Amino acid sequence: MKQYIQHDPWCVVENGFHAEHNEITESLMSLGNGRMGQRGNFEETYSGKTLIGNYVAGVFYPDKTRVGWWKNGYPRYFAKVLNACNWTRIDVQIDNETLDLAHCQVADFRRILNMKEGYLERSFVATLASGKQIRVHALRFCSLVEDEAAAIRYAITPLNFDGTITFAPYLDGDVSNRDSNYGEKFWTEIKKESNHGQAYLELQTKDTEFKTELFNVATAMQIDVAINGQSVDFESNAVENDKQVACQIQLKVKANDTATLHKYVVNLSSLNYAAHTLHAETQVYLERIVNKGFDQLQMEQAQAWASSWAKNDIVIEGDVAAQQGIRFNIFQLEQTYTGKDERLNIGPKGFTGEKYGGSTYWDTEAYCLPFFLATADPAVARQLLVYRHKQLQKAIENAEKLGFNNGAALYPMVTMTGEECHNEWEITFEEIHRNGAIAYAIYDYVRYTGDESYLQEYGLDVLVAIARFWAQRVNWSADKEKYVMLGVTGPNEYENNVNNNFYTNYLAAWCLKYTLSNIKHQISNIKYQTSNIKYQTSNVQSPTSEELAHWQHIVDNMYLPFDAQRQVYLQQDGFLDKELLTVDDIAEHRPINQKWSWDRILRSCFIKQADVLQGLYFFEEDFDQSSLARHFDFYEPMTVHESSLSPCVHVILAAQLGRKEKAYEMYVRTARLDLDDYNNDTEDGCHITSMAGTWMSVIKGFAGMRVQNGQVSFQPFLPDQWQSYTFRVGFRGVWLRVAVQPHHIEIKNTSAETITVRVYDQSVTLAGGQKQIVPTEATKPF
Amino acid sequence: MKQYIQHDPWCVVENGFHAEHNEITESLMSLGNGRMGQRGNFEETYSGKTLIGNYVAGVFYPDKTRVGWWKNGYPRYFAKVLNACNWTRIDVQIDNETLDLAHCQVADFRRILNMKEGYLERSFVATLASGKQIRVHALRFCSLVEDEAAAIRYAITPLNFDGTITFAPYLDGDVSNRDSNYGEKFWTEIKKESNHGQAYLELQTKDTEFKTELFNVATAMQIDVAINGQSVDFESNAVENDKQVACQIQLKVKANDTATLHKYVVNLSSLNYAAHTLHAETQVYLERIVNKGFDQLQMEQAQAWASSWAKNDIVIEGDVAAQQGIRFNIFQLEQTYTGKDERLNIGPKGFTGEKYGGSTYWDTEAYCLPFFLATADPAVARQLLVYRHKQLQKAIENAEKLGFNNGAALYPMVTMTGEECHNEWEITFEEIHRNGAIAYAIYDYVRYTGDESYLQEYGLDVLVAIARFWAQRVNWSADKEKYVMLGVTGPNEYENNVNNNFYTNYLAAWCLKYTLSNIKHQISNIKYQTSNIKYQTSNVQSPTSEELAHWQHIVDNMYLPFDAQRQVYLQQDGFLDKELLTVDDIAEHRPINQKWSWDRILRSCFIKQADVLQGLYFFEEDFDQSSLARHFDFYEPMTVHESSLSPCVHVILAAQLGRKEKAYEMYVRTARLDLDDYNNDTEDGCHITSMAGTWMSVIKGFAGMRVQNGQVSFQPFLPDQWQSYTFRVGFRGVWLRVAVQPHHIEIKNTSAETITVRVYDQSVTLAGGQKQIVPTEATKPF
Repeated sequence: MKQYIQHDPWCVVENGFHAEHNEITESLMSLGNGRMGQRGNFEETYSGKTLIGNYVAGVFYPDKTRVGWWKNGYPRYFAKVLNACNWTRIDVQIDNETLDLAHCQVADFRRILNMKEGYLERSFVATLASGKQIRVHALRFCSLVEDEAAAIRYAITPLNFDGTITFAPYLDGDVSNRDSNYGEKFWTEIKKESNHGQAYLELQTKDTEFKTELFNVATAMQIDVAINGQSVDFESNAVENDKQVACQIQLKVKANDTATLHKYVVNLSSLNYAAHTLHAETQVYLERIVNKGFDQLQMEQAQAWASSWAKNDIVIEGDVAAQQGIRFNIFQLEQTYTGKDERLNIGPKGFTGEKYGGSTYWDTEAYCLPFFLATADPAVARQLLVYRHKQLQKAIENAEKLGFNNGAALYPMVTMTGEECHNEWEITFEEIHRNGAIAYAIYDYVRYTGDESYLQEYGLDVLVAIARFWAQRVNWSADKEKYVMLGVTGPNEYENNVNNNFYTNYLAAWCLKYTLSNIKHQISNIKYQTSNIKYQTSNVQSPTSEELAHWQHIVDNMYLPFDAQRQVYLQQDGFLDKELLTVDDIAEHRPINQKWSWDRILRSCFIKQADVLQGLYFFEEDFDQSSLARHFDFYEPMTVHESSLSPCVHVILAAQLGRKEKAYEMYVRTARLDLDDYNNDTEDGCHITSMAGTWMSVIKGFAGMRVQNGQVSFQPFLPDQWQSYTFRVGFRGVWLRVAVQPHHIEIKNTSAETITVRVYDQSVTLAGGQKQIVPTEATKPF
Repeated sequence: MKQYIQHDPWCVVENGFHAEHNEITESLMSLGNGRMGQRGNFEETYSGKTLIGNYVAGVFYPDKTRVGWWKNGYPRYFAKVLNACNWTRIDVQIDNETLDLAHCQVADFRRILNMKEGYLERSFVATLASGKQIRVHALRFCSLVEDEAAAIRYAITPLNFDGTITFAPYLDGDVSNRDSNYGEKFWTEIKKESNHGQAYLELQTKDTEFKTELFNVATAMQIDVAINGQSVDFESNAVENDKQVACQIQLKVKANDTATLHKYVVNLSSLNYAAHTLHAETQVYLERIVNKGFDQLQMEQAQAWASSWAKNDIVIEGDVAAQQGIRFNIFQLEQTYTGKDERLNIGPKGFTGEKYGGSTYWDTEAYCLPFFLATADPAVARQLLVYRHKQLQKAIENAEKLGFNNGAALYPMVTMTGEECHNEWEITFEEIHRNGAIAYAIYDYVRYTGDESYLQEYGLDVLVAIARFWAQRVNWSADKEKYVMLGVTGPNEYENNVNNNFYTNYLAAWCLKYTLSNIKHQISNIKYQTSNIKYQTSNVQSPTSEELAHWQHIVDNMYLPFDAQRQVYLQQDGFLDKELLTVDDIAEHRPINQKWSWDRILRSCFIKQADVLQGLYFFEEDFDQSSLARHFDFYEPMTVHESSLSPCVHVILAAQLGRKEKAYEMYVRTARLDLDDYNNDTEDGCHITSMAGTWMSVIKGFAGMRVQNGQVSFQPFLPDQWQSYTFRVGFRGVWLRVAVQPHHIEIKNTSAETITVRVYDQSVTLAGGQKQIVPTEATKPF
């Protein structure tokens, strides 16, 4: 845990340069706009600890799988969002000295991520080896409005000398991924050119044996220069190397003059433009950007962020650290996914690092969807669902590779295109609960939005294919006289290849039941009947009546491991053979994923993240409060929360049980996970998908928001540590602002349409623009 | 399955060139002498399918582990016996044409591995593109007597032209491993030189981050040339490239003249000589070899093999294929391990291929030891045990990496130095039964040889450390009120991470019991008492009385999964949840390791190799015949025998149950596994360790040999398909020759000392040189 980031309600502030934490700060200060993004790297040369990272959404490289011993069904490659052209690079020379903070005396250093207006700013005074002193101020952003463009303003003021400043703004495609499986570089150069103050670099992903799509990314820049705010002419010398192009310019300056470089960049990919048009398109795009100019672009950026915050801000009074934490989480989620493109999704690290390959995990459905449902237009959440529908054919092929048939679909654990990329059998083949999360997301979306048309148009295709998977994945145990599910890995990845994981079995049975009920519903729907259960995807055939009967038989006869003595469902068969310790017994051994061998972890009772409790969270209506409490009390003490996805589920359950203190204790772990580098891994990038869990902790946890029968309800409490909190959620066309105060809740309908909500057990009807006050009810700890 | 190898009692014969099977033939025709070996590659250039392989025993490279997602405790490198200097290479040019059988018409091709005398011979007539015809005859061997030397005779006769023959005999160190994890080459050149007809090449293994021992291997050659048997002078031109040196010589020959090249090679490594002396030592060694000359070396070779066959031959009458098969197995075992060096062991592929890295597996103890016990001086088997004792400290460190302490030892799954190299957690951390096999080998050795001094000197050290591992690896199940063992992989690797694998639990309890009984025995031994249970290895402290009591408690309370209805021990907890099919149900799906995904394999009931039955084989005395039969009948029908180590155990059990036909059916799978490429993988190398299983199938299976209470016994039957079989075994200083005929067994004591053996239930005493006839008893199938 590190606490060098300064608390501030709207900014992430590094005060004084913490070179030893630079890779962490780079992660935290990442910028993105859903279409591209990059880590908070320095523009100028830095020979200290740094992880250069620039990413273009959806542009991936199929990196050949690295595996010890191959097994049938393993994926051949891991598709990873690759480190792309570094367009932030600006080499700086002061007379004959290179500016490199690793070799200067640095004073007055500040690096600030301004979340309110969406930019990264940095200033410092550097004393070079020669004694020359300069002040530097740099500011950049990835435009939300022009989402394939970015701009940098880089200003230098010599403080104690007259001399020559050399800027070499680069397009640098000679980059590599630190996580490259075989140490390869992934790009080849297609074209480069440079003119006066302009440059163009087009790269293509290397061809491979896997014959996946090749991507071209064209990056173009234009610069202008000012001295003391006045544009000046300059000579531009082209610097060209393999996959690199720069415009070098020299400026003679006097002490206290400020030389300012503006660097406008556009970054277009063949995902959005025909490859042969990229050159022409970048020129048009670049011209538009340059014509707008830096100040207008920055103003647009501030406006775009203001309108985003108007929908999703959470205001916490009385706790600046918590305020900063929640805004940081919301900011990063918004930077990562905008819902404009159904081919994109939310990588666990977003645009903040390489780890996990920038690919799609079940995190999206299980953790991120609720955030986008409540804070954005329903079309945004719908895009996340359509993404999976588009990949249904690949999911069917994934299942076929494992020996399933008849259109059964197994969605991948990790993917860019729908093809499985994860190559550990215990995850790839066994952590199949992800398939259930994808079905659950459809349920969650329809429940929240009321948009039943989605089911007919897309959802049922997916549900039927998933149901077919489960029906083939279980087998009848003659010994138990029940359906069992062997060889699975639950959400608790500290167990592998277990039999009858409660969560997976329960979720599978639910999927079958939900699919069955939707098929019945659709059959009674005339429009659907006329199309004779013809599904969208030609590969998904209508289930036969025998199939439906078989599914029902599984629903009625699914085995769930249960301990009659404790009256709790067991995480898996044999769980009680373990030595049942609690986290308190192993205080000095944590985190166990760093201190213990995998062998020891696997055999222990310790739980990485909610597993049985994940099921109770998803299906809380199926369990009464005393049952929830029994399970929570059995499993939570064994849970080490070594996944960033773990605490939020526990916050929500603890809140549901009226355990305010426990809920808050768990919340603290998740809210500043990256800002305080709680897991000692933020240098790899931020935990983007778990940030949605933090949001859920507040909204579903503290505020107890639920949607049932088309109505939204709240059961709020105020953590003792806070003075109040206020949040906004959208529900079926109405935007609500909810302020939770010590003694009352103020709920305001900020839209025009009337809405009826529940607060505790009260029904509250709010006309457009109206607000009401409801007294806070004391929580009753269970 | 392929059947192109010609049946012959003493030779492996390829008649006509089978280019498509060349890598298989290369494996089959491998030569070795325990110290070095190589595949049956062509000497001359061959641009067709080939896997060049030359190996030096004990010389390894630590190849950086290739793994998808790292976990604590994983080994950092895989130590592999690396492909070393190719000293067989002789480039041949006929005038301006390169001899390359991929680009010639080939006639009269024969490649013969002569097992009786231990050499490889090849002859053919090649018609080159120009129409020139030559006859070639090549013969080579790795000397058993001069076990760091080898010799080649390569003769060419032009048949229809006069012309120039150019020989370029090479020392070629520019080789690589096909299984290199990152495509690297593993050698660097230290020195090379060439003189008239002589060359020297010294290579060193590349330095790595792992800082393991670097090995130097010095290879030297000398050539001489004859025309029509008469030595001739020649000019030798040096050819030098990176890691390559050759002596090129040109000979003018007339049609029907025979030009013969002799190439003498020595291959010394820093394992046996100080690196700085290698150059000088090779010169001395080479001179000795050259002075002996090719014919004497070949004669010595024939004599050495004759004396080997005198100890271990099995003669089968009435079945040439079976005769060839068993001799091939014995020949390869003898080529691979000679017991001269306690630092060496038996790689699963010996010197016949790269696969499995040439490292040591539990195969040595579980399968190979009985062969060497019965066919060699006891010192040979003892060396195999001492090998593990020498690695005890590493085994303790392996266990420490996983969190064990107090001197608990976990021997590695795969190793060169004692350090674990296998990097799949489900094997590395879980296939821990190997530890038991190492203890069992001590028991087996002492039982066979009666050499109790071994226990005191070495064995008890190992047993105590292994016992400590088991005592820590089990845990008390409050639920079962027994000791359980969670998260293991049994010999059946088609199951991973199971709980309470019967074999492992049983073996662990046995290890504890055997260690306890030896400790009691040693304490009553005065010599041992005086040394106050001071063990050989300083890291193994004497067990305390609390420890001993704890071990006894585990022995008395070990849980073994059992099905009361079927009265069989279950392979693991939950086994009965599987769909219990038989191999007959999936005939078209085999081999499942090629046709099924790993997911499907894991969830199925199908068994790769004996697992419960491995336990019943090791501990047959603990089970009555009806129990053996019940287990055999339950498990054998589910066994796919997709490990080469599987059939032999089933032969022995079937024989024990009097099921001659079943025993023979299983035997057929193992006896010609490589000769007929049964598993379609002989091209990777031969299954050396399973060859000992084939030997066991005959001796422990058909002949029913056992050792109990210091006495050897036989319970032979003759397979209906054979007329007779005769084998030799040594037992406590006496050599027996046993001939099993249709109606009687003739047993002869070929030594001087008197011995009493049992044949069926008869006690038979044989004075030195005496033989006796015992009538065959009918087997009673159970």
